[in-house]
Amino acid sequence: MPILEFLDYAGVAVFAATGALAASRKHLDIIGYVFFAAVTGIGGGTLRDLVLGATPVFWIRNPLYIVVCGCVGLIVFFFARRLESRYRLLVWLDAVGLSAYCVMGAGKGLAATGSPIVALVTGMLTATFGGILRDLLAGEPSVLMRPEIYVTAAMAGATVFTALSYFGAPLLAASACGVLCAFCVRGGALKYGWTLPTGDPRPPRKPDDVL
Amino acid sequence: MPILEFLDYAGVAVFAATGALAASRKHLDIIGYVFFAAVTGIGGGTLRDLVLGATPVFWIRNPLYIVVCGCVGLIVFFFARRLESRYRLLVWLDAVGLSAYCVMGAGKGLAATGSPIVALVTGMLTATFGGILRDLLAGEPSVLMRPEIYVTAAMAGATVFTALSYFGAPLLAASACGVLCAFCVRGGALKYGWTLPTGDPRPPRKPDDVL
Amino acid sequence: MPILEFLDYAGVAVFAATGALAASRKHLDIIGYVFFAAVTGIGGGTLRDLVLGATPVFWIRNPLYIVVCGCVGLIVFFFARRLESRYRLLVWLDAVGLSAYCVMGAGKGLAATGSPIVALVTGMLTATFGGILRDLLAGEPSVLMRPEIYVTAAMAGATVFTALSYFGAPLLAASACGVLCAFCVRGGALKYGWTLPTGDPRPPRKPDDVL
Repeated sequence: MPILEFLDYAGVAVFAATGALAASRKHLDIIGYVFFAAVTGIGGGTLRDLVLGATPVFWIRNPLYIVVCGCVGLIVFFFARRLESRYRLLVWLDAVGLSAYCVMGAGKGLAATGSPIVALVTGMLTATFGGILRDLLAGEPSVLMRPEIYVTAAMAGATVFTALSYFGAPLLAASACGVLCAFCVRGGALKYGWTLPTGDPRPPRKPDDVL
Repeated sequence: MPILEFLDYAGVAVFAATGALAASRKHLDIIGYVFFAAVTGIGGGTLRDLVLGATPVFWIRNPLYIVVCGCVGLIVFFFARRLESRYRLLVWLDAVGLSAYCVMGAGKGLAATGSPIVALVTGMLTATFGGILRDLLAGEPSVLMRPEIYVTAAMAGATVFTALSYFGAPLLAASACGVLCAFCVRGGALKYGWTLPTGDPRPPRKPDDVL
Repeated sequence: MPILEFLDYAGVAVFAATGALAASRKHLDIIGYVFFAAVTGIGGGTLRDLVLGATPVFWIRNPLYIVVCGCVGLIVFFFARRLESRYRLLVWLDAVGLSAYCVMGAGKGLAATGSPIVALVTGMLTATFGGILRDLLAGEPSVLMRPEIYVTAAMAGATVFTALSYFGAPLLAASACGVLCAFCVRGGALKYGWTLPTGDPRPPRKPDDVL
């Protein structure tokens, strides 16, 4: 599946760049850049492989992914000043990573189980877990908490890919449509601030609340 | 093992409700509700299956668990206002979830390994990890940090179930006693504020401390 | 591999002590001490076994590790007041744990895959993930964020061990050199405040930033 493999490398590299940027913002040293690049780049795919039972996980079967993360971490370390002026570019690259990874994750889940529901979940997980880990480890507010559409874009892309694949569309076409859909949803949210309506708002947890 | 299966669905549904409620408090959108419902509902069982090597994990072998989480997330999204006035009910349902899951986790651990020590640990993990994940991802103080008894209730239920099973009690009786014990301990902590004595208190970590 | 096994128990016990100390600082009860001792002590090795596909993980195959964590938690609970006056000792024991675990993790990764890159990653992961989990769950700033060298020491030890092993050095010699190297780097950082230069500093993430 060369198309899925390409999406995998693209997702890893782009997410690794966002992880290294988080390290940059936290004033870490060069190993910190590489560490965050690796955790963000391979975190989502690692969780996907673990729950599917596809172990050893992908970057142990093929350490080239680790090398990609390491190189991205080094590049960001040495050229972060340049990248800073390209902040918007990076935001959009993150949208590309999300789009690539939700299709990639759904594809692996569908191939492993044949279940469209599982494909949706692994697609969403793979696309979002790297960024969640990055924010958790860096001690920043999680991307999950943003009002702006994020998880939803991953879900949209995974849904389109899975539905098309399930009904027999060729892999390349289904992948392209899924990636495009996720990117349009996330891109629209970035450009126009799209949000979904929230439910009945509730006050934040009080210190003496239990749950 | 129909009794353990029932406990599993009960635990998933109740924890999913607490996750969706956390999403509600954070003013998330509908996908956020479903996401938190799923993470909280299946998080503990996922970790249990991973460490036991029972992969693919349970919700991939049986996606009905995902459907349950999704439905619970939707229900809470549309009826959160009603649920808010039932806050105490929900607190008590969380105690039910904890009670169901500590026995469920211990049962799976015991069946997989025969070791009572492993059963205790998988029981405690399964019952608490979903709530820990929920709090971590929502950026709220972890339930682990509450002075009130929480982990201890899970341990008590897992201990009773494991001891009875180990000495040959029928599954149904051991499960009922374990669930009841965990629920009484957690319920007592909720109703009467039970705590265990803390150790020698120490000052919080200073910024220049290393550990 | 008795040397690797010894390093494993040493790493588990020492990290468990740091976890119990974190519980002590958070004024938790006795179960909280045991919980944090277990999570910190076995967290790194658990992730290592999961990604390598070596499931059930080590403490399920051999519950003695759990017993060690439990005993360490109890000891710290009852003798925390004494330990407090031995704070520097504990900091240095943590350095011992890091040193033991980076070699242990690299050894397992190398044995399982033959790939030096994988060995480096599993060495670093095993040595650092327990402490990361401890800080995440306790709600404290992650050890990753400290300016002082930490991950780098684990990487140095794993690199030395892996390189020596890869080029045919006996296991005992490679292990000793790796442990010594990691300990010297971490010890130097503790004693002299060694740091690596940071990259171009960037301002912290603004609330309206996306990544």
